[in-house]
Amino acid sequence: MSASSPVPDARTRLAAAAVDAFAARGFHGTTTRDISTTAGMSPAALYVHHRSKEELLFELARLGHLRVLDLVRASVAPLSDPVAQLGQLVEDFVRDHAEAHTGARVINYELAALRPEHLAEIRTIRHEIDLVLREVIERGVATGVFTTPDPRMTALAVLSLGIDVARWYREEGRWTPDEVAAHYRLLALRMVGAA
Amino acid sequence: MSASSPVPDARTRLAAAAVDAFAARGFHGTTTRDISTTAGMSPAALYVHHRSKEELLFELARLGHLRVLDLVRASVAPLSDPVAQLGQLVEDFVRDHAEAHTGARVINYELAALRPEHLAEIRTIRHEIDLVLREVIERGVATGVFTTPDPRMTALAVLSLGIDVARWYREEGRWTPDEVAAHYRLLALRMVGAA
Repeated sequence: MSASSPVPDARTRLAAAAVDAFAARGFHGTTTRDISTTAGMSPAALYVHHRSKEELLFELARLGHLRVLDLVRASVAPLSDPVAQLGQLVEDFVRDHAEAHTGARVINYELAALRPEHLAEIRTIRHEIDLVLREVIERGVATGVFTTPDPRMTALAVLSLGIDVARWYREEGRWTPDEVAAHYRLLALRMVGAA
Repeated sequence: MSASSPVPDARTRLAAAAVDAFAARGFHGTTTRDISTTAGMSPAALYVHHRSKEELLFELARLGHLRVLDLVRASVAPLSDPVAQLGQLVEDFVRDHAEAHTGARVINYELAALRPEHLAEIRTIRHEIDLVLREVIERGVATGVFTTPDPRMTALAVLSLGIDVARWYREEGRWTPDEVAAHYRLLALRMVGAA
């Protein structure tokens, strides 16, 4: 937070309030009034910034998914060995889903509330994330360092394992995000049959 | 369906309507009226059979979790080799989460809506399910057929992988429940470092 902007702006406060409300009561159980007043604003304030509750969920989902796409691209970009790439990608993806578990739950479990054209846009970004991982696994299979009868289902399972961390992870639990990330790196490398 | 009971009874119809409604709009986005009328009954009919919407969710969650606990106990009971036990457990657990994905989503993702004493009861059953798997993994480690630095986190990850199948699986997708179950058996055996 910079000295010139000591208080989060209205859009940021609305976004944070929406994540908490959607996580606690689901999209359909949350009103625009809930979000506005939790953000410390007047009941109709959401409409100054978003056309609807659905547009706000879409913005959260779009920005959240683009952030994860950037994250996994950055994980693999500086590396060339598929073993190192897969390990780094899984560590970063899993740590992120543990650290940002509330937001991750919302943008993974509330997608059915999006309008079809918005859902299609989120699915496109998810497909890009999937392709980053699948390309690493397929290159590992091609170069002989990975062995799997179904690279595509294996890629899905590796992401799936990371996504489910957002469901069960809690700060007060047994493990730190780094501990989960390190163990899941090992699990993922075993799943692809790394030598 | 037996000849003497050609139409599901009221409780069964209410349960089926509740699963569909909770899956589509979440617990908080669903009214008791929605459930009753979807079940083809009068708006207040739910209260003839359940004290509240929360009691109905609890019943769905309790029966659903007990069913899965029976399932995983039956998977391992006739076997003694940890490799065979883990393989069978994962196949059965994963196939079930693909086949019954809608109900599994509800009872895994709506638990936060339960009252604390009900949540505690469900957590006890989940812990029993976890123990069945953990006991297999720990015995495999003890007898030297599995190798994992953290049997407990590995058990959590194996169940987590199966639970997430309920999030993504759809009948119109690429794979049958049997195909997912067979591949996940392999993945789980690799996760525990099966020889």
